Amino acid sequence: MNVEYINPFLRATLNVLKTMAFTEAIAGKPYVKKEQVAGGDVSGIIGITGETDGSLSISFSESCICYIVSNMFGETIGKLNQEVEDAVGEITNMISGDARRELAEKGMVLHGAIPTVVSGKNHSVKHMAKGPSIAIPFSTKAGHFVVEVCFNK
Amino acid sequence: MNVEYINPFLRATLNVLKTMAFTEAIAGKPYVKKEQVAGGDVSGIIGITGETDGSLSISFSESCICYIVSNMFGETIGKLNQEVEDAVGEITNMISGDARRELAEKGMVLHGAIPTVVSGKNHSVKHMAKGPSIAIPFSTKAGHFVVEVCFNK
Repeated sequence: MNVEYINPFLRATLNVLKTMAFTEAIAGKPYVKKEQVAGGDVSGIIGITGETDGSLSISFSESCICYIVSNMFGETIGKLNQEVEDAVGEITNMISGDARRELAEKGMVLHGAIPTVVSGKNHSVKHMAKGPSIAIPFSTKAGHFVVEVCFNK
Repeated sequence: MNVEYINPFLRATLNVLKTMAFTEAIAGKPYVKKEQVAGGDVSGIIGITGETDGSLSISFSESCICYIVSNMFGETIGKLNQEVEDAVGEITNMISGDARRELAEKGMVLHGAIPTVVSGKNHSVKHMAKGPSIAIPFSTKAGHFVVEVCFNK
């Protein structure tokens, strides 16, 4: 998979968290996900169609997403609830949209489906597109989260 | 949401399990999912785009999916592993394809994205499309599973 596909998702994640949730995240080095590893406690997942097909996920630990959503809402959110899940869906949608906008400027037109949000302690997400699953690790003051993208080509 | 949207997914599920996994499932009455309830131990999730947007999920308990995949492969599979996850992705894809074929015959053209597979004890799936989430419960000799669909209209 071309790195040109990855960087727009990395930048979109930083941008969305900064502008929507006033949260500074630090991106680590993207890597090819070899094994199904523990992903997080809540994940937003979105299918992507168009010039290539694939999927995007973003998985947070409970403490990390509560920190981000507390920043977003301006009030302390202590645990995962429906409001947090809705926020994860919104964040996923916005990252997908922001990244696809950048890719469209490069001539790569992709569409996003409707996100789904999965909750459950320590679940993992497996992407089924034919290409490698690329994981981008991020850190915040309240812990880590990971964005994963996988495309057919 | 129109019941015409739901029945093709119900029939596709029975059909795919019967033809691909030699498993007879019994469909219960579809209901509107009011609360985020425990879904299962492994879920296939697929985004759907086209005349309307939405998502489909199918969530199995570990014992139920091991029974189904054992039937499919003709060998006993005792626990959730990567092979089972791949099979869940395939089953999800086939149900989505089968249901969309029936809907297309009725003039409703939908596209399926690439599925993702989530693993983790007792996770739940929340659909973010604007319409109600409709759950279709199924039972097999080895326990229950649930198919959920949700569309914007």
